[in-house]
Amino acid sequence: MQPFEFSRRALIAGTGALAGAITLDLPAGFARAQAQGAPVNQAPGFYRYKIGDITLTAINDGFGRRPLEGFVRNAELADVKKAMEQAFLPADALNITFTTLAIESGGKLTLIDTGNGDSGAPTSGTWMKNFTAAGFDPKNVSTVVFSHFHGDHINGFRLKDGTAVFPNAEVMVPAAEWAFWMDDAKMNAAPDAMKGAFGGVRRVFGPIAKDVKQFEGGKEILPGITAIAAPGHTPGHTVFALASGTGRMMVMSDTTNHPALFVRNPDWSAVFDMDGPQAAATRRKLLDMVSADRMQVAFYHAPFPATGHIAKAGNGFELVPVQWTPAI
Amino acid sequence: MQPFEFSRRALIAGTGALAGAITLDLPAGFARAQAQGAPVNQAPGFYRYKIGDITLTAINDGFGRRPLEGFVRNAELADVKKAMEQAFLPADALNITFTTLAIESGGKLTLIDTGNGDSGAPTSGTWMKNFTAAGFDPKNVSTVVFSHFHGDHINGFRLKDGTAVFPNAEVMVPAAEWAFWMDDAKMNAAPDAMKGAFGGVRRVFGPIAKDVKQFEGGKEILPGITAIAAPGHTPGHTVFALASGTGRMMVMSDTTNHPALFVRNPDWSAVFDMDGPQAAATRRKLLDMVSADRMQVAFYHAPFPATGHIAKAGNGFELVPVQWTPAI
Repeated sequence: MQPFEFSRRALIAGTGALAGAITLDLPAGFARAQAQGAPVNQAPGFYRYKIGDITLTAINDGFGRRPLEGFVRNAELADVKKAMEQAFLPADALNITFTTLAIESGGKLTLIDTGNGDSGAPTSGTWMKNFTAAGFDPKNVSTVVFSHFHGDHINGFRLKDGTAVFPNAEVMVPAAEWAFWMDDAKMNAAPDAMKGAFGGVRRVFGPIAKDVKQFEGGKEILPGITAIAAPGHTPGHTVFALASGTGRMMVMSDTTNHPALFVRNPDWSAVFDMDGPQAAATRRKLLDMVSADRMQVAFYHAPFPATGHIAKAGNGFELVPVQWTPAI
Repeated sequence: MQPFEFSRRALIAGTGALAGAITLDLPAGFARAQAQGAPVNQAPGFYRYKIGDITLTAINDGFGRRPLEGFVRNAELADVKKAMEQAFLPADALNITFTTLAIESGGKLTLIDTGNGDSGAPTSGTWMKNFTAAGFDPKNVSTVVFSHFHGDHINGFRLKDGTAVFPNAEVMVPAAEWAFWMDDAKMNAAPDAMKGAFGGVRRVFGPIAKDVKQFEGGKEILPGITAIAAPGHTPGHTVFALASGTGRMMVMSDTTNHPALFVRNPDWSAVFDMDGPQAAATRRKLLDMVSADRMQVAFYHAPFPATGHIAKAGNGFELVPVQWTPAI
């Protein structure tokens, strides 16, 4: 599904990463520094901001390392490397980051997507550590909304051993996504490389299938949260418009993978886009809209804290990150 | 010296801010949310990264709010507002942030600049909270290096009550900066509006004047840290080239104030630049150099974590922030 490649150093540190340690890439002097008690941690990966009366908290779930070769379907590797170089990113591989949203509104706590849980790359899986560092308790999650059913968005909902991570949460999913992935005929007809994704969806949602609430695009699914169908990345891929008072934001989900590649070059398609041309059309339409409206946006795969605004730039766009502030 | 204006809401929260609270801008539902135990904090404002074997930790000291009117000496207000709009920043006022660096190298802990201490805006003064959250102890600071003597860089060294915050640290200052600010003739000849700045320098350094170590530009002042004279912002304003293995970084100090204004428009001068034309010449020379060399940079007044790379853009430059990572 998502063939990340992990660096040797990340793999060496992998067990620690799964156990919740944040330092993944060990410097040469690590053992000595640690012996001296020198700090090596990063600050917790959460970031709060407001849209009207809604409080959002971006929760990071680490990253997966992906070789550039073969990543963009319809661009030359040299052009992809040039885009990376322009963004001062490595020319060999991309760290694809995962950042979900916790939404506090009207006394309710809603999640959009849940991260990789214990099913992802060894450099991921830090979501729960960051979620609890932000002061949240998984028992208090009222609703979990999914943008689509790729593993890095749904696996955090259920541990490998079957444990439901948010025992008191109502689950809301795009109807078109449910229809596609839960269709046994589609699973049986899928190429072998995709069968794991179908199986993963069943693993996560099977035990609660009868309780899952399906929604259509164009509907306000929770107060201030409107689902908008954004197909292409997956058949039921969904983005969400948030509104509170005069505040507006668009949760762009996987409308793009890394902005340095796909916001800058919206006609490029990552291998994860199931229907490349449809995904590109959806991407351009949404980027046009949020740039014209100067709306704040959040992207699942933008660098943490994964929120900013979209400006037109040449034949594409660019993501201008928000200015970090301690004032919420 | 630095006539920040504070929002009403920030002032209301001011006492809490000085006592170390991080939430400065209270939302309407704050009292209710707090009563329910809903979290309202931001993650601590520190960020670790490596340059070769050197570990850097960016430490945020909050921000000061500055009206745009009268801020840029040599640009029309409409043009300044346009630059703010292009960066998706407010059109009325700028939040100027403060981010110092802690440098761990060879078992020593060195600081470059110290923040506002308890002498700054009520929205600043969070440095010690963030420094200790990063696992540091002020008693373990070996050396404090100052880039220049403006209050937002030096006041964190000594509390208003006279307490030395880093009791075991050697203090290193640019010789040209010392010569200017400690010259009584210059203080007496200065306009009244500048006399406070001279007094502040004496308050901070007076008790340790005989122990302060002065350095010249062009010298490696500590292993891997080379001072480079960068005059204009102040007479002795200094930037620092870090080198470790193949790693290189330029600590740009106050070569620019907010990058959205002065990296984009390097010929603009902020009112804090004591010699505007000299500051602009220094700025262009340094930005040319770090963009040609693709060096990582840190700016004291860039949005936290205040590090990235410089790309040429039109007749100016732009700061491309680093991608946040939990892997150090």
